[in-house]
Amino acid sequence: MQTPIEVPVPTLIAQSVLIEPDSVRILDRRVFPFERSWVECRSYEDVAVAIEDMVTQSSGPLFAAAGGMTLAARVADGLVARERAPYLLAAADRLRAARPTNNGIREAVDALLATADPLLVQDRPISDAVEREAVAVGERYLARSRRLGATAAEMLSDGDTVLTHCWGESYVTETVAAALRAGKRLKMVCTETRPYLQGARLTSESLAEMGVETSVITDGMAADLMSRGVITKFISAADRVTMDGHVINKVGTLQIAIAAHAFNVPYIALVQAPDLLAPTPAAVPMEYRDGEEVLHTLGQRTGSTRVAGIYPAFDVTPPRYISTVATDRGRFSPRDLASYYTFEESGK
Amino acid sequence: MQTPIEVPVPTLIAQSVLIEPDSVRILDRRVFPFERSWVECRSYEDVAVAIEDMVTQSSGPLFAAAGGMTLAARVADGLVARERAPYLLAAADRLRAARPTNNGIREAVDALLATADPLLVQDRPISDAVEREAVAVGERYLARSRRLGATAAEMLSDGDTVLTHCWGESYVTETVAAALRAGKRLKMVCTETRPYLQGARLTSESLAEMGVETSVITDGMAADLMSRGVITKFISAADRVTMDGHVINKVGTLQIAIAAHAFNVPYIALVQAPDLLAPTPAAVPMEYRDGEEVLHTLGQRTGSTRVAGIYPAFDVTPPRYISTVATDRGRFSPRDLASYYTFEESGK
Repeated sequence: MQTPIEVPVPTLIAQSVLIEPDSVRILDRRVFPFERSWVECRSYEDVAVAIEDMVTQSSGPLFAAAGGMTLAARVADGLVARERAPYLLAAADRLRAARPTNNGIREAVDALLATADPLLVQDRPISDAVEREAVAVGERYLARSRRLGATAAEMLSDGDTVLTHCWGESYVTETVAAALRAGKRLKMVCTETRPYLQGARLTSESLAEMGVETSVITDGMAADLMSRGVITKFISAADRVTMDGHVINKVGTLQIAIAAHAFNVPYIALVQAPDLLAPTPAAVPMEYRDGEEVLHTLGQRTGSTRVAGIYPAFDVTPPRYISTVATDRGRFSPRDLASYYTFEESGK
Repeated sequence: MQTPIEVPVPTLIAQSVLIEPDSVRILDRRVFPFERSWVECRSYEDVAVAIEDMVTQSSGPLFAAAGGMTLAARVADGLVARERAPYLLAAADRLRAARPTNNGIREAVDALLATADPLLVQDRPISDAVEREAVAVGERYLARSRRLGATAAEMLSDGDTVLTHCWGESYVTETVAAALRAGKRLKMVCTETRPYLQGARLTSESLAEMGVETSVITDGMAADLMSRGVITKFISAADRVTMDGHVINKVGTLQIAIAAHAFNVPYIALVQAPDLLAPTPAAVPMEYRDGEEVLHTLGQRTGSTRVAGIYPAFDVTPPRYISTVATDRGRFSPRDLASYYTFEESGK
């Protein structure tokens, strides 16, 4: 019998958001891995600002928003009855608005409002129940990522060199971990992902922490490596997958997916579930960020002062460039995502 | 009668390489436009090192190599007869090897060796003739870029938003200048072009100096802007175009060209002439640079210390993604570049 292969859990997964008795501490991804520091948030407003300021991103805002709602619930418990629900709803609105394209915030906030609602109606304290549910939201999220990773890893072969873009968080780390546990040897290549360098800093560091041989390329190099056969698979998380099979993810995904299609490299999009609330991309608010960020790198000016930057944070990849969508319920064609909701989990 | 539109010549074209009585001064593109400083070279070896170190790039090495050969010729004139030719040939080899994929160096060096050769055979001084020819090489180069620009500009329409990648030097500035002189209003978008940021620093600054409304995007955003109809043309210089219609240019070109093809955006490749010495890409030595450069930005660490960088400096775009090749003799299909050499210039 083989010894099971142990894969370390990277820092960014294990210590991303810490709910403390009087604060929420968020690992500062803007300076990771060069500095390992946490931003201390004492109110939901602090958390919302931290999310807006990109202290955390990808699935980080789900955990951060759950923490922010916990802080809000603690304050609400000290208010008079008629002010409690409005306060919590204001917190929910503020957190949701911090990054309108991020689905994780909505998920966490909705779950915690659902927990608080019956207690508020009965005028009972909410903070303990909200905190327990905040932790549970995070655990459910990670459990779904593990199922997603197991199903995505079946698409990877021993010896693959896998490209990934931006920081796909537990979707990507669980996919890689599942492949490694199955005895598959992988090399990973990360796009650096300007302007925030999530690939160069977060993904590459995390994959290296997991013991994988990892390289970084600039955002313009993916097609070149594919044209020469260096890359054999492309995987990316998706912030959302619409029911008609469009992947909405960090800007740059579209360009790589088109190149992958041109060079016959399978593109596996990772998402826990397609988004029933988004039948098409038109239903998804697309976030534009400050163009100045494109003209800077880690705070240093890197572009001419005479010009403007343009910064669409996300792009939309149509189904024709997507080979398969790996979810927590198995893999689906991007043309047939309704199957996700007719699939019987109990049957597996 | 209309007043002719005057278009300013940008600093990077007007003051790129200055041949002085005792040195060659090369505008340092690594820090432009944040600092305007020149690297002083007192020997051909200094010039070769400056080219290797990317003090100048694109067509800059042509001008720099011409300057380096001028310095070598001055030294050669002080040597005994049997040492003069070997010295000049060693300089030529050293300069050519500084960036093996750059055609401009080869052009300049070959022209100056051809000037020196009959004088060396007769044991006459070469330095004055070499310096005159070095200046003439630069002037011929710019004159050809102007013809190329005039022919490429015919493909641009009033109201176009034109994407360009990296720094296409006089090919791009002359194309834009010709369009502006013809009364066409353009907006320009530059990819930042990591790791050296030629687009964010050199191209965007130069186009702004020319009075054009210019924006910068990261290297991953081109497809997104094309998918939304923001970009209407893509132009790039080519370091080389092979006779079978492949464009060899700064890495990233391939990825954008594939996206342009997917979204029906014409890609106009700019080159003075297709390369008779390169029937196919196999004939072109491809330069790999130090991967550490991908993990840094303007000297600052921007990637994990646990991983490797990969840095192919160029990529190869096949003819299926190229709409037209604009040259100093007109525009040609990438499938029919032999026409360039059968075209009669006198007939125009």
